[in-house]
Amino acid sequence: MNLLAAALERWQLAPDGGATTVLQDLAARHGTPLYLYSGPLIERQVAELRAELPRDLALLYAVKANPHPAVLHRLVPWIDGCDVTSVAEIALALQAGVAGTALSVAGPGKSNAELAAAIDADALIVLESLAEARRLAALAGGGVRPRVALRINPPFTLAADARMGGGPRKFGVDSEHAPAVLAALGTLPLAFEGFHVYAGSRCLDAWALAEAQRATLRLACALAPHAPSPVRLLNLGGGLGVPCFWGEAPVALATLGDALRGLAGDAARRLPGARLALELGRYLVGEAGVYLTRVVERKVSRGIVFLIVDGGAHHHWHATGALEGRRHLHYPLAVLGAAGRAVERVSVVGPLCAPHDTWAEDIALPVAVPGDLVAVFQSGAYGASASPQGFLGKPPAAEQLIDWPATCGTELHPQDEENKHA
Amino acid sequence: MNLLAAALERWQLAPDGGATTVLQDLAARHGTPLYLYSGPLIERQVAELRAELPRDLALLYAVKANPHPAVLHRLVPWIDGCDVTSVAEIALALQAGVAGTALSVAGPGKSNAELAAAIDADALIVLESLAEARRLAALAGGGVRPRVALRINPPFTLAADARMGGGPRKFGVDSEHAPAVLAALGTLPLAFEGFHVYAGSRCLDAWALAEAQRATLRLACALAPHAPSPVRLLNLGGGLGVPCFWGEAPVALATLGDALRGLAGDAARRLPGARLALELGRYLVGEAGVYLTRVVERKVSRGIVFLIVDGGAHHHWHATGALEGRRHLHYPLAVLGAAGRAVERVSVVGPLCAPHDTWAEDIALPVAVPGDLVAVFQSGAYGASASPQGFLGKPPAAEQLIDWPATCGTELHPQDEENKHA
Repeated sequence: MNLLAAALERWQLAPDGGATTVLQDLAARHGTPLYLYSGPLIERQVAELRAELPRDLALLYAVKANPHPAVLHRLVPWIDGCDVTSVAEIALALQAGVAGTALSVAGPGKSNAELAAAIDADALIVLESLAEARRLAALAGGGVRPRVALRINPPFTLAADARMGGGPRKFGVDSEHAPAVLAALGTLPLAFEGFHVYAGSRCLDAWALAEAQRATLRLACALAPHAPSPVRLLNLGGGLGVPCFWGEAPVALATLGDALRGLAGDAARRLPGARLALELGRYLVGEAGVYLTRVVERKVSRGIVFLIVDGGAHHHWHATGALEGRRHLHYPLAVLGAAGRAVERVSVVGPLCAPHDTWAEDIALPVAVPGDLVAVFQSGAYGASASPQGFLGKPPAAEQLIDWPATCGTELHPQDEENKHA
Repeated sequence: MNLLAAALERWQLAPDGGATTVLQDLAARHGTPLYLYSGPLIERQVAELRAELPRDLALLYAVKANPHPAVLHRLVPWIDGCDVTSVAEIALALQAGVAGTALSVAGPGKSNAELAAAIDADALIVLESLAEARRLAALAGGGVRPRVALRINPPFTLAADARMGGGPRKFGVDSEHAPAVLAALGTLPLAFEGFHVYAGSRCLDAWALAEAQRATLRLACALAPHAPSPVRLLNLGGGLGVPCFWGEAPVALATLGDALRGLAGDAARRLPGARLALELGRYLVGEAGVYLTRVVERKVSRGIVFLIVDGGAHHHWHATGALEGRRHLHYPLAVLGAAGRAVERVSVVGPLCAPHDTWAEDIALPVAVPGDLVAVFQSGAYGASASPQGFLGKPPAAEQLIDWPATCGTELHPQDEENKHA
């Protein structure tokens, strides 16, 4: 099944984009451009993932993927905590009901304000260097012992779109220097809890993910004897991607689940007392979001049909501007309510005075006219918040969490032990 | 002279980045990260340009390049109008004291709200298609005849970074169809004023710019007989770039000025009564801005020194994230107050949990320590407003217009006929 067909099925839309009353009604009510985030799809995604994960694995949500308060609130019952990277994200997570102790604060070059907010929340602070550890200890004063994990820059990387381990990096402490740093940590008034390794992002290959996770456990086992106290947490990072482009397939979840359950067994023997954690952003919410934009004009220029829509790079950078130089790629998109229309080849472009403001070039779509809605799927992560919304002074996109489409699933109970292990 | 040396001279900084009290004081007062826009440098840039331009040429400022109200206010006495693309930009320009009749409203797929705001302001509306013309006429009703220009998608392009003419485009009306569109315009209740052609952006080659401008005049002359009324305006677009990367040199202004004066002479003969216009954004303000960011940490990973600074891709996308895949490029940058220090090779990176958040890789800089300021020059255009400032919930950059450095120039008088011809 191709990406578009999968997206239409997920959103319970007819194969040709027909029968779309719900989305059309929402667009009429909230205006366009509009991001819709589906609560039921978010829950289904987490539940399906949970079903494959080892029972005790902690699942953290990386707030940066989609910090919309309603999304966060909807996720809270299903997750064990949040990965946050700023004072604002700490506040958002607390407001959504996440316990401060369930926050993991990561990022190179944390500001003193960020460290102070993390101390106040009693969050786990993922240290990226010994210098940061010393700064944290000085900030905390003598009264409290901030909870810390040490981020390791591993000797390996994840074969992924965005590599974040291996070689020289701004992230974490080089694995070969970790023993010395751990020894120094033991002399500081910090409560050491474990390790954090993030080897890469946007990976769709379950075998590559599993191999990086196995290597992470080996690394943690090698470093554990140097730690100032027993390792209670091993954050395996994340890296699970969502297919957005032609030819991409979803992560083989069963494969990854098998590998992770095996890994959990190894960890229980080799690193007893340590809880494994995954921190996922895009994977939890990416497929649960759709961006709706309305056709303003249909225009033919030198043989090419352009659909000019009211949304563009200022709202959804990763589906438009970030594709500059690889314009043959496009997110799955459909014209809603276009059942039965003839199909033509078109380019879909935004309203910005900028040539990179392009959704898709030369793709087959049902003939669309001004007023029609174009749905851009796989838009739940790194959308509004990761885009230059102030550019050109155009209005920001509206964002709404919705309770549609209903997913078949009485089996979804966030408080069950099957689903959550907080 | 290399780009960095030119920038240091422009900002009256010592060659090694020493003697930087003013910038350091401003950073201490306003905090970092901080965009500083120099009023005197903006004025000098416009005055130097004006000195080379034909006397009657209208100079428009493209607000999208830097919509900061203080920048706009500073520019107003020196320009003849503004190019705007949204309701918010129309309001900004009016608030800064630009007459509504001096606004030029461009952009494909304008919303009805944008067209209505343009009508209200009595702005010149740059039509991108006949469909838009019809929509405008319907919106205006019978009472007013909106002032319009027709944007032409020329048969040529500008050899530039961002090509916006030639081939099929979302912008304007294909030149070969312009006669028919002009005939149709004549039947609508619109006040036709002239043509707009924008062939490309970010060009540093004066000869290429001049050739595109000559071709634009030829095109306008060929189309003028088809226009519903005499051509009163020919907007030549813009496209003048600012050097940001190694090996780039500024536009040869004298060369361009010679060509434009010749062109103005031709236009006076071949298109009598038509005023030429240029719309420039980056060129007017790009070199008059500097971004200051503070070193949070100096870190060595596997032989590479990383300076982690407090500013990154969320504030200045074009100097960081947009360079992904061409990381050998970097904006000119300096460590302030580092006179006399040893030089080392470093990578300068931002605080985001994202590998593309990189200012420069493996460049020579004086040894910097936490607390030092790094200045990123050529940062006056497409900075804060063109970046995903909400990403990760990090605070936005501060922005300040300053009256420093003073430029030698009693010759700068915006109201003189030499400088402004409104």
